[in-house]
Amino acid sequence: MTRDQRLAQAAQTLNCPMDVDIAPGGSYCPVVRDERMLYVSGQLPRLNGVMASLGPISAQPAAGAATLAQAQKAARVSALRALMLLQRTLGSLDSVQRICRMTVYVHCTPDFTQHSEVADGASELLVEVLGDIGLPARSAIGVAQLPKNATVEVEITASAHFAL
Amino acid sequence: MTRDQRLAQAAQTLNCPMDVDIAPGGSYCPVVRDERMLYVSGQLPRLNGVMASLGPISAQPAAGAATLAQAQKAARVSALRALMLLQRTLGSLDSVQRICRMTVYVHCTPDFTQHSEVADGASELLVEVLGDIGLPARSAIGVAQLPKNATVEVEITASAHFAL
Amino acid sequence: MTRDQRLAQAAQTLNCPMDVDIAPGGSYCPVVRDERMLYVSGQLPRLNGVMASLGPISAQPAAGAATLAQAQKAARVSALRALMLLQRTLGSLDSVQRICRMTVYVHCTPDFTQHSEVADGASELLVEVLGDIGLPARSAIGVAQLPKNATVEVEITASAHFAL
Repeated sequence: MTRDQRLAQAAQTLNCPMDVDIAPGGSYCPVVRDERMLYVSGQLPRLNGVMASLGPISAQPAAGAATLAQAQKAARVSALRALMLLQRTLGSLDSVQRICRMTVYVHCTPDFTQHSEVADGASELLVEVLGDIGLPARSAIGVAQLPKNATVEVEITASAHFAL
Repeated sequence: MTRDQRLAQAAQTLNCPMDVDIAPGGSYCPVVRDERMLYVSGQLPRLNGVMASLGPISAQPAAGAATLAQAQKAARVSALRALMLLQRTLGSLDSVQRICRMTVYVHCTPDFTQHSEVADGASELLVEVLGDIGLPARSAIGVAQLPKNATVEVEITASAHFAL
Repeated sequence: MTRDQRLAQAAQTLNCPMDVDIAPGGSYCPVVRDERMLYVSGQLPRLNGVMASLGPISAQPAAGAATLAQAQKAARVSALRALMLLQRTLGSLDSVQRICRMTVYVHCTPDFTQHSEVADGASELLVEVLGDIGLPARSAIGVAQLPKNATVEVEITASAHFAL
């Protein structure tokens, strides 16, 4: 299977159509390409217009709080959107040389400390689709809030085989 | 009008002299240039020695909290400082090839979710001065606190036409 | 003294053996090298399996809270780990051209505003070991929580003299 076929398969598993609207929700570019580098805007876990997970994740179950499984799925959805944007920019994921860096912002209460486990949801999607070159340098950070009350936001920087 | 003229105009509108002191408040470089890339340190919204906006932004008006308009202006001031630093590093903004990435950290209470609207204040300044190449890939993040109780901090990575 | 000798000296002062285990605590690469660029994963201040500082830093001393001195040392330890990873990737720190960017995430309560002072702990280690090329563009950010309740997390992007 090619990378593009594996992306389509991952999208199907998450019930996300490949032509899903990923329009920017503000004044920014979804992806900036500068020579070999691709800077993908921070992705929220929106799927078919609905946020995959809302609210902070907390150590103890709480009203309005996300569970670890929800947050991991949200990280996966955000990473899927980032790969879809890379594919649309490059034509095919075959042109990706490396996922260089990923920052996973986790909206959490101060008692939550499993940010790495949440971020693994995003890493696993990248490796499933891209193989070894999908495993990024990573930072996982716990933050007070995210746009639209999303549970995670995933920011990816990648390189392509050829410069523009 | 040139980019440098538009920067001067934007500075004047914000009552910011073009020779304003942007000395680092710690042990770091305001801008690192490495071949074609320019890494600008996170900018607080300081204007003539005074922070344009202090305190967190909250969904409901509160004592000591910033309003949306104040936070947007603060984002604009931070972006202005980043462009001034790029100009001082390069001699002229004509040498900027692309604003590649911008991260807008918004100091907020957990009920605030309009981080994108705050970040738009910074994006709009970049596009006013630089045109289309000023529109960056962007992440907007809500954080617990920022240095000196500032309401926003704006981090920009740009590229130049020529390598050092 | 060479950079590698100064790194060994800094490690000794912090009681950190040069062959310390810096295995990833999740699904990511410690360092991604893409041509000239080196992306180091966010480093927690772990030393010989023990976190150098836990809990948030607050403006007032509080139970379970870190002091400024502890947080500065933690930033120093995180920066040491990042340099050790660069050395292991490149063979020698002599191959580092520039520390381009550093983001210092400080786990804090909302009353704490001295993030720059904490980040200086990391900057000083970089300059001690690498000299002028170690002084990075920097952002210091206050966050709600960090993985494993660490007090700081330090993310570094560097360039090497030669591309892979």
